[in-house]
Amino acid sequence: MLVSYSTLFQFTKNTFLQMGCSEQHAQMATTVLLSADVRGIDSHGVARLSGYVRLWEAGRINATPNIRVVHETPSTAVVDGDAGLGLVVAPYAMNVAIQKAQQCGTGWVSVQNSNHFGIAGYHAMMALEYDMIGIAMTNASALVAPTFSIEKMLGTNPIAVAIPAGKQPPFVADFATTTASNGKLEILQRKNQAAPLGWVQTVNGEPTTDAAILKSGGAMLPLGSDREHGSHKGYALGSIVDIFSAVLSGASYGPWVPPFPAYVPMPENMPGKGLGHFFGAMRVDAFRPAEDFKHHMDNWIERFRNAKPVNEAQKVLIPGDPERELESIRMKSGIPLLEPVVNDLRNIAQKMNIDTGF
Amino acid sequence: MLVSYSTLFQFTKNTFLQMGCSEQHAQMATTVLLSADVRGIDSHGVARLSGYVRLWEAGRINATPNIRVVHETPSTAVVDGDAGLGLVVAPYAMNVAIQKAQQCGTGWVSVQNSNHFGIAGYHAMMALEYDMIGIAMTNASALVAPTFSIEKMLGTNPIAVAIPAGKQPPFVADFATTTASNGKLEILQRKNQAAPLGWVQTVNGEPTTDAAILKSGGAMLPLGSDREHGSHKGYALGSIVDIFSAVLSGASYGPWVPPFPAYVPMPENMPGKGLGHFFGAMRVDAFRPAEDFKHHMDNWIERFRNAKPVNEAQKVLIPGDPERELESIRMKSGIPLLEPVVNDLRNIAQKMNIDTGF
Repeated sequence: MLVSYSTLFQFTKNTFLQMGCSEQHAQMATTVLLSADVRGIDSHGVARLSGYVRLWEAGRINATPNIRVVHETPSTAVVDGDAGLGLVVAPYAMNVAIQKAQQCGTGWVSVQNSNHFGIAGYHAMMALEYDMIGIAMTNASALVAPTFSIEKMLGTNPIAVAIPAGKQPPFVADFATTTASNGKLEILQRKNQAAPLGWVQTVNGEPTTDAAILKSGGAMLPLGSDREHGSHKGYALGSIVDIFSAVLSGASYGPWVPPFPAYVPMPENMPGKGLGHFFGAMRVDAFRPAEDFKHHMDNWIERFRNAKPVNEAQKVLIPGDPERELESIRMKSGIPLLEPVVNDLRNIAQKMNIDTGF
Repeated sequence: MLVSYSTLFQFTKNTFLQMGCSEQHAQMATTVLLSADVRGIDSHGVARLSGYVRLWEAGRINATPNIRVVHETPSTAVVDGDAGLGLVVAPYAMNVAIQKAQQCGTGWVSVQNSNHFGIAGYHAMMALEYDMIGIAMTNASALVAPTFSIEKMLGTNPIAVAIPAGKQPPFVADFATTTASNGKLEILQRKNQAAPLGWVQTVNGEPTTDAAILKSGGAMLPLGSDREHGSHKGYALGSIVDIFSAVLSGASYGPWVPPFPAYVPMPENMPGKGLGHFFGAMRVDAFRPAEDFKHHMDNWIERFRNAKPVNEAQKVLIPGDPERELESIRMKSGIPLLEPVVNDLRNIAQKMNIDTGF
């Protein structure tokens, strides 16, 4: 089913309003959540709305949070999300980073006591209109086994970096620090298809193509898949995201990150509060004149776009190209929703006593 | 052959002194270069000394550089390395980052007009004694093909992140953004052994196990190896390192980075000056009290060290463990040098009219 952006926006916003969010927060949360759907990261958009509702029902999301800076220096801050929607806490924190960057060149904000924040790319891209480089990362519930381990210790812990250009569209990298995102794994499960070797392992640490292996104790693998192909690098990257997001801020980390499914009990002896995020903003003119920087970014992008391809039919892409293309299509022709997602949204509508509008 | 640290130090320092480096610069360059040998990253230590000498002979390294800050804000700076040894330029720039962090929480320095800087980990670790997180990265001569490409566009562009702990040793990640480092590939070539599939590709972009394939037009692969296993993420990471190091600073980037072998002609139409680096320093107490942070880092490290292993014989490692272990062994019992490296060093000694001391 294809649903227009504006219809889906109104329904999603009404859901957040029914949860008790303010007009401003509902608007923001909806904008962030749907940025995943329009950019083609379907696993992080309205497919997760029912998950947010259940966390709210379980009392794990505060619809009226008092989000605030609890510690700061000229270029840094720690933000307490007061258990609010990450979809609202994250833009608040990114704005703090941007303001710090306006004052002293760069701004860096670590966040405690938050929840899932949608796609990292949205927050990183907030910096672009200020001629800043934006950085966003978050920890998440443990699904990933470190190299040499069978225990799920890290989330898929994504990193996003958005870099402004001049005539060219911006460079926007946004990726999980695993071989494949959990979203891709979920799609294979739904289709009952096998995963490529190197995405997941069994409960005993053996290679497998079973996309549903996490249900029987398996784990996702860090970027690199195995030691010989650099999984210790993916493990290090996921660890850095965890430490910057949570050990710096006072959020919970590693295997103690609160689970997204509301029916999974909270970990015992949590060492911090809620999920953690980390944001950065760097003014490009804190390094060289913005026009020089953008001119050279255009040159960089054009040169890489024209790198000699393996096949002429598949040119080299710049990070952000596929998502931007999907965005322009979906804003015009609508967002495709799978049947289980449509049913999920209808259930929310019934529960919240609102119309889906489709 | 095993050579003691102090013998190798004296010889290496004498080489830099004969190049015309000041006493202080020779001392610093030697300390940085040998940190690779003692930490087991043999490809980046004295094995490269003859390469530096040849670059100096070719007039591409300035032994008496006027290294200076050419642009700054409270939390940022651009450093011009004046074509000096990266081994000297990088610690200068990292110190600027540390000073900025002391003033306003964090410091971020992009460097133009430099040369190869040894191992990234050395520079990142400079932050540790100040209770700061250190970050270091550099671009390098193009050996790596982006996803979907057969053209060498990026260097192995390493990233290092050093994070202080309390009772535990620090977390020190230091890795090339490729599946395997060029050093590992060189070792396989020397031994005439095959590389695992996924490390390199042929001139036509086909999979190969030929460790010497770069000599016949092949390329190294980004972390992830192929599209299905996330090579677009490794390509994005290597690109971010290139842009932060060079597009921000005014250094040369992508396929225009100056080659390390002095016999390879300089690229035409270089868009910037020399190699680029990027450094960051973040005071942990710019986020939370340093003692709290270190307590939780200890907890993080202990929990991950005790993650359930696949085999009891191979426990889960913390980034930096293998290098620290080698360092303690090699500082006591000496640094093993392969025969071609010994011959290389003897040739330098003859050319420079100094003793090797071994």
